[in-house]
Amino acid sequence: MTGLNLARKLIEAHLVDGEMSPGSEIAVRVDQTLTQDATGTLVMLELEALGLSRVRTEVSVQYVDHNLLQADERNMADHLFLRSAAQRFGLWFSPPGGGVSHPVHMQRFGVPGKSLIGSDSHTCAAGSLGMLAIGVGGLEVALAMAGEPLYLTMPRIWGVRLTGELPDWVSAKDVVLEMLRRHGVKGGVHRVIEYHGPGVATLSAMDRHVIANMGAELGATATVFPSDDRVREFLRAEGREDDFVELAADPDAEYDLTDEIDLSTLEPLIAKPSSPGSVVPVADVAGTEVHQVVVGSSANPGLRDFAVVAAILHGRHADAQVSLDVNPTSREILADLTKSGATLDLIRAGARLHQTGCLGCIGMGQAPAKGRNSLRTFPRNFPGRSGTDDDQVWLCSPETAAAAALTGRITDPRTLGFAYPAVELPESSSVDVVVLEHPLPPGLAKEVELVKAESIGSLPELDPLPDRLDIPVVLKTGDNVSTDEILQAGAAALPFRSDIVKLAEFSFTRLDPTYPERAREAGDHVVIGGENYGQGSSREHAALAPRSLGLRAVIAKSFARIHASNLVNFGVLPLEFADPADYDGVEPGDELQLEDLSRHLADGEFTVSNLTKNTTFGVRHRLSPRQIATILAGGRIAEHLGGKHGN
Amino acid sequence: MTGLNLARKLIEAHLVDGEMSPGSEIAVRVDQTLTQDATGTLVMLELEALGLSRVRTEVSVQYVDHNLLQADERNMADHLFLRSAAQRFGLWFSPPGGGVSHPVHMQRFGVPGKSLIGSDSHTCAAGSLGMLAIGVGGLEVALAMAGEPLYLTMPRIWGVRLTGELPDWVSAKDVVLEMLRRHGVKGGVHRVIEYHGPGVATLSAMDRHVIANMGAELGATATVFPSDDRVREFLRAEGREDDFVELAADPDAEYDLTDEIDLSTLEPLIAKPSSPGSVVPVADVAGTEVHQVVVGSSANPGLRDFAVVAAILHGRHADAQVSLDVNPTSREILADLTKSGATLDLIRAGARLHQTGCLGCIGMGQAPAKGRNSLRTFPRNFPGRSGTDDDQVWLCSPETAAAAALTGRITDPRTLGFAYPAVELPESSSVDVVVLEHPLPPGLAKEVELVKAESIGSLPELDPLPDRLDIPVVLKTGDNVSTDEILQAGAAALPFRSDIVKLAEFSFTRLDPTYPERAREAGDHVVIGGENYGQGSSREHAALAPRSLGLRAVIAKSFARIHASNLVNFGVLPLEFADPADYDGVEPGDELQLEDLSRHLADGEFTVSNLTKNTTFGVRHRLSPRQIATILAGGRIAEHLGGKHGN
Repeated sequence: MTGLNLARKLIEAHLVDGEMSPGSEIAVRVDQTLTQDATGTLVMLELEALGLSRVRTEVSVQYVDHNLLQADERNMADHLFLRSAAQRFGLWFSPPGGGVSHPVHMQRFGVPGKSLIGSDSHTCAAGSLGMLAIGVGGLEVALAMAGEPLYLTMPRIWGVRLTGELPDWVSAKDVVLEMLRRHGVKGGVHRVIEYHGPGVATLSAMDRHVIANMGAELGATATVFPSDDRVREFLRAEGREDDFVELAADPDAEYDLTDEIDLSTLEPLIAKPSSPGSVVPVADVAGTEVHQVVVGSSANPGLRDFAVVAAILHGRHADAQVSLDVNPTSREILADLTKSGATLDLIRAGARLHQTGCLGCIGMGQAPAKGRNSLRTFPRNFPGRSGTDDDQVWLCSPETAAAAALTGRITDPRTLGFAYPAVELPESSSVDVVVLEHPLPPGLAKEVELVKAESIGSLPELDPLPDRLDIPVVLKTGDNVSTDEILQAGAAALPFRSDIVKLAEFSFTRLDPTYPERAREAGDHVVIGGENYGQGSSREHAALAPRSLGLRAVIAKSFARIHASNLVNFGVLPLEFADPADYDGVEPGDELQLEDLSRHLADGEFTVSNLTKNTTFGVRHRLSPRQIATILAGGRIAEHLGGKHGN
Repeated sequence: MTGLNLARKLIEAHLVDGEMSPGSEIAVRVDQTLTQDATGTLVMLELEALGLSRVRTEVSVQYVDHNLLQADERNMADHLFLRSAAQRFGLWFSPPGGGVSHPVHMQRFGVPGKSLIGSDSHTCAAGSLGMLAIGVGGLEVALAMAGEPLYLTMPRIWGVRLTGELPDWVSAKDVVLEMLRRHGVKGGVHRVIEYHGPGVATLSAMDRHVIANMGAELGATATVFPSDDRVREFLRAEGREDDFVELAADPDAEYDLTDEIDLSTLEPLIAKPSSPGSVVPVADVAGTEVHQVVVGSSANPGLRDFAVVAAILHGRHADAQVSLDVNPTSREILADLTKSGATLDLIRAGARLHQTGCLGCIGMGQAPAKGRNSLRTFPRNFPGRSGTDDDQVWLCSPETAAAAALTGRITDPRTLGFAYPAVELPESSSVDVVVLEHPLPPGLAKEVELVKAESIGSLPELDPLPDRLDIPVVLKTGDNVSTDEILQAGAAALPFRSDIVKLAEFSFTRLDPTYPERAREAGDHVVIGGENYGQGSSREHAALAPRSLGLRAVIAKSFARIHASNLVNFGVLPLEFADPADYDGVEPGDELQLEDLSRHLADGEFTVSNLTKNTTFGVRHRLSPRQIATILAGGRIAEHLGGKHGN
């Protein structure tokens, strides 16, 4: 018998149902949850709809980090609602200014060996501590808080062996950019990436966060690192050494797939506009003019990431044509930066020091000018996500960002002409700063009324799936359509996150501004998609908002994991073309007929008639019997309230 | 012969035309100008329309401080345009992050005895240094840069004698709130406020900035302080002691009007929603629940103002229900705060530390929740200016703001129960930080092309005033309508500041969302106003945008100074009811007839026929012959290009 890898150990420790063979549906126990404000208001409305009394998880935290601009009254109304809901249902609450959920969660709540799900696709970052951490749709999180397990497809475990040590000017971001360069944005789909080997010990826990975070960009279900002395060191600095548990794969562990990276051979890399998968060496694009550099986000959240930028800029000035924007990721990290003098170095160098939060990473401000290059340490650069049509956003390490800030051009930091600065981190972090509010005790919590301003809507009621659909194709998309395109974030749409009726007016508008009106006119309808449909952010609004306009089915070449689950959760059929070539034979306006759905879904494959073209084509699905029941019921809330859950 | 007050000395030193008797039009030489981004893009388009080669002032500075949110591509496009225009026309440029214009201008360019005009109503803040500093419309600034003098009505000089010294927990903001409590928002109209007496020496130069800044809220033309040892001390700290000039009123100076304040008798004051004039003692409203506290803006911009908040919060935590927002006013001040440890104190206490700039003060973010109280150290709380309909914004000192942050209630800071903290300021300021770009030399400047993205419009062409107007009343307003209501700032409208055609769609929409459509249908039309029409911000967009929809005349009970000039500059007739009671007899929809305008305007008073009601009423104006010529020509740009300027 061969040894177990760490990912299998973690899954096994949480398994409550199913067989651990890749492709099978399994159910795992959820120890911790996180929600953020952009997805959280809907989750709290779901808790209300579910009639939950108090969360049943060990730890659940509501963060406010995405929408902090407060362009009008709705934003602060959301914050007040979320705080009241956290108090009502027994969650921790991290108010605006506390910081980005992922690094804060790692600092305050991360415990090796625990499972964590979050209504944010970068929840996987906590794999840095040896957690089983998975980004899911908000409803999955709500149901986990209600005590249900998480259902997912058993992934294949991908062992990536790290050897060597990173050279100067190359950092953790370049490791995950190398993974994206090799494997692209679909490379991790239905896989857990497990890093192992001697190179792992050369990476700090926060370095591992950088790599685990952008596992989302590879489409991976999760990323797992061992819990070793570097994790102990991290927890000690956070005043939580008692939470340390050593975890590792067995020495003779086997993996379903393998890869290897010699860290010492890596060079500075950069993802070109407009995909995290378009990775090239920085040297290949050096000299390109830059007008904005943004440092921050959950993809480079650690003290080191800012401190190294400050050290590179120390005694120097940013180029006058560059807006150098610095977004500290948490109050704790800002306090540490300030104590060390790094904040002052950044200010002196000409940085615009912004409030802590996600900010430009989710398109809440910091939009670049049209066609002007913006270099960011962020995880994503999907078209328009920055808030700018025709944006030119590049993704890179803090070192590469700092080099561009100094020169006004994309610059390989190794060519700056001075020594790589050493960055000393404190042994203890500033854990004394105000970040979180403790859950209320049950007695007090029950008395709390939800604070719902007019701008806080309620969940639309969704009816069951009819057994026969005669529905028009209202939209046809290309490949790799992200949830940013299905339902944009950013300053225009994010304020409506708490009101699905209004939010629905933004459905697909980045692809086709006429969709909402045409969808409403059509009523029940279908959307045709290409490969990797629904990649990116976990926002379930991208399922619920078009569903509320009548979306009944998406027929695509393939689906991104989280979005497919979200479609199911709100009663939308995610179907795949049996033969991808049939994609070419369907046009917007075509009337499709799907018959005998309850029987056909049980069969797995069936035939769809194109009444307009008088043709037929085959479709299939990857739905479990549980998921089929969910769709037929009209989604998981209807199912849960109907008493059908947990069977 | 009696002695001269300082205000008369300053005016006399710059007088190029007219008689210095109150009410007469005078023309003064302009030494310095400032523009900010919200008004500056239009000013730069005006310089382009005027065909200016290079500014003719001693110092002209373009600041970017108002709109920094970058919710989409237009914002950064504005920044790029402004930078290119500063380079092209020979201005200094303060990019985003440099700071709020008024404190930065005081720190870097303020020189006692010089004249300064700015396209921002708080330009008067520089009176703190013994400057003749006046907020005006953008076109006045553009013409000053082109070498023309500033025309204004010779104000009456109002001597306010200060005695005594402020008690603990009472600061400069309470002095100007006391002035507003006594005299209201019209108290300073057509006046220059000159502070003198033994109490002046107890106030630092930056304290005086606080008081001079909010002279705008009193409606004053300017505020003047003597230039004394405290000013020398300030300039020394800024590394510019050589710029010091001692200036004071003659010992036997006389004033047109007088008042006196014994500083030692003042207590903490607060302006209630929604006027800076609704001032009451903090003690009278203590206990009122607070959800937001914002520290910053040009009304409390100095290092002391933040340091005292940090000292009060030192070792304490903000109340959990309060969002404590801190907006450092300049990079220099943020550097000083950070050096002293105050930044760390603020972070530890739970503050959200924002980028430097105006931010919530101009409604760019930080909008409070509907009906929830927000305490701000800002200068203005006009309805909706915060970005929130039905907002509840209060104005107070940093001390009162800090007290509310600690308790979550409006709190007289004297009741906090601990000693007033001493705040030590450094002898030298952080003048080494990156704030400004130097003007390009003329040879290089001429080569610069203006960077105009699609979102940068051009000035609409305005035709001359017809001699007869048969025009409908499209809107009737109440008293004290501010330019925030005529043309809102904030996150919705500010991004369109560079495109008058699009911006016009926001004209009067806070008062009546149907105005733009009805105005466009009506074509030439008139608006009826009450008292103090057009108070507040200097934005000339509030004249030009409705003008572009056909506004030809405003008939009001009285006008705020800057807005009346702006109307003239863009060819709109500002007429006053000869008998204010006639205001009641005019209704929206009435058709008014104004005949023989060129003759009647020369007469000063004339009769308007209400064709609908079959009545007549008398109107008058305060226009100089020069202004009449301007209106008849269709505004000052048309006049300037027609060769009629300077006569």
